[in-house]
Amino acid sequence: MDQKLSYPTLQAFVRSVFLAMGCPSADAETATASLLAADLRGIDSHGVARLSGYVRLWEAGRVNARPNIQVVHESPSTAVVDGDAGLGLVVAPWAMQVAIRKAQTAGTGWVAVRHSNHFGIAAHHAMQALGHGMIGMVMTNASALVAPTFSRERLLGTNPICVAIPAGEEPPFVADMATTTAANGKLEIHSRKGIPTPTGWIQDAAGHSTTDPDALKAGGALLPLGGDCAHGSHKGYALGAIVDIWSGVLAGANFGPWVPPFPAYVPMPEGQPGKGLGHFLGAMRVDAFRSEEAFRADMDRWIRRFRSAQTVEGQEKVLIPGDPEREMEAIRLVNGIPLASSIIEDLQRTGAAFGIEWA
Amino acid sequence: MDQKLSYPTLQAFVRSVFLAMGCPSADAETATASLLAADLRGIDSHGVARLSGYVRLWEAGRVNARPNIQVVHESPSTAVVDGDAGLGLVVAPWAMQVAIRKAQTAGTGWVAVRHSNHFGIAAHHAMQALGHGMIGMVMTNASALVAPTFSRERLLGTNPICVAIPAGEEPPFVADMATTTAANGKLEIHSRKGIPTPTGWIQDAAGHSTTDPDALKAGGALLPLGGDCAHGSHKGYALGAIVDIWSGVLAGANFGPWVPPFPAYVPMPEGQPGKGLGHFLGAMRVDAFRSEEAFRADMDRWIRRFRSAQTVEGQEKVLIPGDPEREMEAIRLVNGIPLASSIIEDLQRTGAAFGIEWA
Repeated sequence: MDQKLSYPTLQAFVRSVFLAMGCPSADAETATASLLAADLRGIDSHGVARLSGYVRLWEAGRVNARPNIQVVHESPSTAVVDGDAGLGLVVAPWAMQVAIRKAQTAGTGWVAVRHSNHFGIAAHHAMQALGHGMIGMVMTNASALVAPTFSRERLLGTNPICVAIPAGEEPPFVADMATTTAANGKLEIHSRKGIPTPTGWIQDAAGHSTTDPDALKAGGALLPLGGDCAHGSHKGYALGAIVDIWSGVLAGANFGPWVPPFPAYVPMPEGQPGKGLGHFLGAMRVDAFRSEEAFRADMDRWIRRFRSAQTVEGQEKVLIPGDPEREMEAIRLVNGIPLASSIIEDLQRTGAAFGIEWA
Repeated sequence: MDQKLSYPTLQAFVRSVFLAMGCPSADAETATASLLAADLRGIDSHGVARLSGYVRLWEAGRVNARPNIQVVHESPSTAVVDGDAGLGLVVAPWAMQVAIRKAQTAGTGWVAVRHSNHFGIAAHHAMQALGHGMIGMVMTNASALVAPTFSRERLLGTNPICVAIPAGEEPPFVADMATTTAANGKLEIHSRKGIPTPTGWIQDAAGHSTTDPDALKAGGALLPLGGDCAHGSHKGYALGAIVDIWSGVLAGANFGPWVPPFPAYVPMPEGQPGKGLGHFLGAMRVDAFRSEEAFRADMDRWIRRFRSAQTVEGQEKVLIPGDPEREMEAIRLVNGIPLASSIIEDLQRTGAAFGIEWA
């Protein structure tokens, strides 16, 4: 049975858990905002549903609650940040601030992050740029669940890319996407309902196309955007690879099959080439290219032209990336965030272990 | 009947045509290298097959053979270049040099280009960064042939993205892809052979999915990478949109349905918001992030791990983006470039109009 909790209620609970892990007060605040941004925007797989997973990583010594995050290399428009094994939920916002500062002076700022952990949803970090009249771009690698085109092995994560672009009177353009046909969360929904997936989402352990949503758990793999070669999966593979190389190789983090797994019980891959998980974050000041006013006016024109396009039969309108998530956030801020009973029980257990009462 | 021509033979001919159009000698050289890079790399749709199209744009006054290309706005890591209606084949290399110069001092360089024309293949421009120990990224918008998810109208071009990344002993990683499921060139191959396309490539004029390769010419549209919403086409749409906004809106070029068409006989869209066609080019100095030596060693490890992955049944190996094109280039430099008789006749006619003898 779903139950709805208000944002402030959930916020107070999550913050208490991060504080109990030993996070400094400001970090607990930041981590809470990063995590709950997913629940607000309707990306339920990346929000409080993962809180116990973060706690288990901390228990396993893979997450450092009091990291010494620092810039270890820089140029006028670039930096490498070492996250000191901190929560990605804290490290990514710190790194995004560096990118924004660089962009203020150099026009753009680009920060590769190593020794981090999962950072929640990319959109939350990319959108930090918007208030500064900047375009934000954020990507991260993740543990390997995806088979490149023609591969039987999982070598890439779902490696999302987010680009957030400010407009004028219209709300911003915010595209946040895994570089796979479908993300893991959608697979779980099909599995729970016991319905087959569309083709092109997964392959089984032998590398054959399948519509069995449980094939991933049985040693199969998610497929890159496109699904198979005839439908352009080599492009999805290339996109996932670019994210992996910019986030991992450029930062000195792990990459490919060596990226640390999210479940704390999965052993670390052997022979890791780098430190932790990697991100890549960027900010581009709009007026480093043209007048911000003219840009915003043209973005409004872009958005209005696309939103008013003639639709195919059965569809009401053409969406602008970010529309569904923004509408969801507006609803959930008023009506609360619905949580499945299994998630609530998980949160209660997580809280209880720290002596924190459930909201 | 196909005929093979050596690279130097084709080069001399194409250069003569650009010179006859009035291009300065250095520009004719640059344009020839840009155009023929496509033929060498096996992207036959973007090479000499388009030469007569460029000439017709020049005849129609849409291409300026002697442009005054200039930086019109800049910051330490950014610039906007006005191409003065020059050939994209010349404007893009000029702009890429600006990006590389910026990266030498600022760590990265990002150049938005307006008032340009088609630039051939993105890979040729992005790869200019490689010799400087830099990562190159190049994208361009193009005239609208693609329907966003749920749209019946064509609002985006095939809007390619290329990322070129240097390695150590291994050849570079070069991913160059249209943000559609399949590019126009593949459609033409199916049309010529009279065979249906896979689903997810095109929709007909009414917005219904079709496998008729001639549906595009009959008012249909190419589909974004993914094909339909169940297979992630909203992601391909978002990628194409990002390319359009960075190349068009950020540069002050045209965008969306207002991008100038390649065929000179197609009238210009009304109410254009900007100047010409737009590109976005970037260069990131690897050692602005970490030691170039360490980066190159890790790239070699990345490439070798992926290339040696266990394959699915019936596939020999997992490819690294750029492998097929590099192999093709090596073959064609030795054996010559095969051209269909229809292309040869078109080139002969183009040359004859300028009094240039066919090779």
